[in-house]
Amino acid sequence: MIELNFSPKVDEAKLKEILGEIKSDEMAGWVELPFKPKLDEIVKIKEAAEKINKESEIVVCIGIGGSYLGHRAIIEALRPIGGPEFVYAGNSLSKRELDYALKKVGDGDFSVIVISKSGTTLEPAKAFEAFKKKLADRYGVVGAIKRIYAITDAHKGALYDEAKRDNYTRFVIPDNVGGRYSVLSPVGLLPMAVAGVDIDSLLMGAETVAKEFEDKEDEEKKESEEKKEDELGDTKKPAETKPVPAAAKYAFMRQLLYSKGFDTEVFASFEPATMYFNEWLKQLFGESEGKNKQGIFPASVIYSTDLHSMGQFMQDGRRNLYETIIDYPTDDLNAKVVEAVRIAHTAGRIPVLNIKVPTYDAKGFGELIYFFEMACAISAKIAGVNPFDQPGVEEYKNELHKLMEKK
Amino acid sequence: MIELNFSPKVDEAKLKEILGEIKSDEMAGWVELPFKPKLDEIVKIKEAAEKINKESEIVVCIGIGGSYLGHRAIIEALRPIGGPEFVYAGNSLSKRELDYALKKVGDGDFSVIVISKSGTTLEPAKAFEAFKKKLADRYGVVGAIKRIYAITDAHKGALYDEAKRDNYTRFVIPDNVGGRYSVLSPVGLLPMAVAGVDIDSLLMGAETVAKEFEDKEDEEKKESEEKKEDELGDTKKPAETKPVPAAAKYAFMRQLLYSKGFDTEVFASFEPATMYFNEWLKQLFGESEGKNKQGIFPASVIYSTDLHSMGQFMQDGRRNLYETIIDYPTDDLNAKVVEAVRIAHTAGRIPVLNIKVPTYDAKGFGELIYFFEMACAISAKIAGVNPFDQPGVEEYKNELHKLMEKK
Repeated sequence: MIELNFSPKVDEAKLKEILGEIKSDEMAGWVELPFKPKLDEIVKIKEAAEKINKESEIVVCIGIGGSYLGHRAIIEALRPIGGPEFVYAGNSLSKRELDYALKKVGDGDFSVIVISKSGTTLEPAKAFEAFKKKLADRYGVVGAIKRIYAITDAHKGALYDEAKRDNYTRFVIPDNVGGRYSVLSPVGLLPMAVAGVDIDSLLMGAETVAKEFEDKEDEEKKESEEKKEDELGDTKKPAETKPVPAAAKYAFMRQLLYSKGFDTEVFASFEPATMYFNEWLKQLFGESEGKNKQGIFPASVIYSTDLHSMGQFMQDGRRNLYETIIDYPTDDLNAKVVEAVRIAHTAGRIPVLNIKVPTYDAKGFGELIYFFEMACAISAKIAGVNPFDQPGVEEYKNELHKLMEKK
Repeated sequence: MIELNFSPKVDEAKLKEILGEIKSDEMAGWVELPFKPKLDEIVKIKEAAEKINKESEIVVCIGIGGSYLGHRAIIEALRPIGGPEFVYAGNSLSKRELDYALKKVGDGDFSVIVISKSGTTLEPAKAFEAFKKKLADRYGVVGAIKRIYAITDAHKGALYDEAKRDNYTRFVIPDNVGGRYSVLSPVGLLPMAVAGVDIDSLLMGAETVAKEFEDKEDEEKKESEEKKEDELGDTKKPAETKPVPAAAKYAFMRQLLYSKGFDTEVFASFEPATMYFNEWLKQLFGESEGKNKQGIFPASVIYSTDLHSMGQFMQDGRRNLYETIIDYPTDDLNAKVVEAVRIAHTAGRIPVLNIKVPTYDAKGFGELIYFFEMACAISAKIAGVNPFDQPGVEEYKNELHKLMEKK
């Protein structure tokens, strides 16, 4: 179980209200993902993963934003041994980058996983075009089709149409799951399964945390019925009997700090392999909360390397920061570094939030994923913004389309 | 030449004073690095690089902070074709990470570059120990010695003593060059040469920018003599005749923005391969300016991938940010993305500073390196802090040593 070194006062009535809102949101599909991994879907994912593994030295994984960061985060953190090499493409419009990805694949046997809800997002669409051509040149048109795995909308869109027409192996991005909350759907599960990540354990880990919120709701329902019977019930509730889930505590703590002027959150990890997990966190929180000219700015450091770069700023720079240490189980010496940093930064007047992860494995990361997803949704709700939209992302796209039409 | 889309009012008297202070600082060795690449040193670097290339499929590059980020930034950005694969080690204390680096080297032929001024910094010392053992197991003690390249102090320290005793090939970290300003010294030049980066062009690029500051000083000296003859001379100077160097403009612009409450600088690049260059920038600015509970917080985004993550925050989050686009030459479509982002973010009320880089090659990066080093030193001086020390970095080290002694 995830453990914290802090325990803010949580307004439980407010929390209950927020959880109700979250669970009834039309984009709340992610809440249920750990409970309802449809068995036939999991079987299909594993079969596809096995086929890809058998046929490929390299897997080209095409996607951007939420269709990219989650699985990369877990695959890099766990670095499973064996399995094909991963080449990520379609997450930029740099031709230099695309050419490099094509070159990296070189003459190796490869398959392509393409992840896009609409199929029209420019970055993945361009990359998919290039890799489809490479596949066809190499394996012929029919051979190419057998090496394309499309994860897309269930019913509509350019990629859906093409996948259906040409009979690619298809997986569904549920309608009610947004990009940055999609890692426990096929979006994340297929690439992770290909890489050899134990997706059953991952889902089990997520379920552990999800259950804290189920239990909570059930308990509260029961409790409120009892309350009706006993109208004294306005006194402080005994915290032992119905613990506030850690993710909720963390959400309230973030907003408490923000209200006191700590407007930048630095996610700190002492395991270099978790760099992309921090990138995933930056997307999750930045895109959920950076709205209406407000929001906690999310940043990332990887220690100890960054103790020799951003460490100076953390120790002695402007005091608008707080630090959230994701405290993975590690070796003795590295654990001492974690402790030394906690002591030194606290002495330097930085609030240090410590999130202790029980295990460094698929299950542990499953817990972390759900912990942060739920914490983010609650935190955004406390801040009064919609955790599930991203209106600002459209604005550069509009500008880009204007510029492209000019041509 | 680097071009800017802004031109703040620059207090030229103040700039002159600051440049005088910078150049006379005891840690000002970096100012002269582009002018004085000692020819015999360059020859020795190239010979060593050739030998390493011939003998190695893999180069293990051991170093942390300033002994690591600069060359990795350039090597990843230019991704020179051919040459050995790079494995970076000694930039963390994670045993998990070290084991992974050892595994990556596997059975390939390899050489080791170890970079440490003192030789006692824990991270590189631990990694060096492990890789020395691997070298000795593989090539014997004598064979190992021939594959170790030490970049260290000229006269003293644990690594110096060992390198001298065991006769490693040795290169010098100049006494008057701090870690984060050391990339144009052997610290950066040897690894880059091994990777096939054209270090002559890199130094030439840096020299181009360095000369803007030489000329300036000479011109001012001349001008002040002329002034004595003509006592009218207190009117505004015609800017055309002695242009303020772009790096100085950028430094003044940063501090102007900071004084107006823009306290977070987001370095934005549209070339994914330059991610580590942004990391180098974060160290350079964070470690130079994050002092006395003050400083601009440096952050990094890589577009367009981060338009689908931090893009929402940039467009519509809290307005304490400004964005510094490092505008590399790129293909037409990607250039349109750059323009679209500039328009959208400006409309979203973010100050957008654009730094246009003339070429995407060793020369262009040489210009950028010196541009940012000088801008950083000037900016820190305007802010009233020492650009060349890092007192805060010691504090976690002290805590760590205390914890280690307890054991």
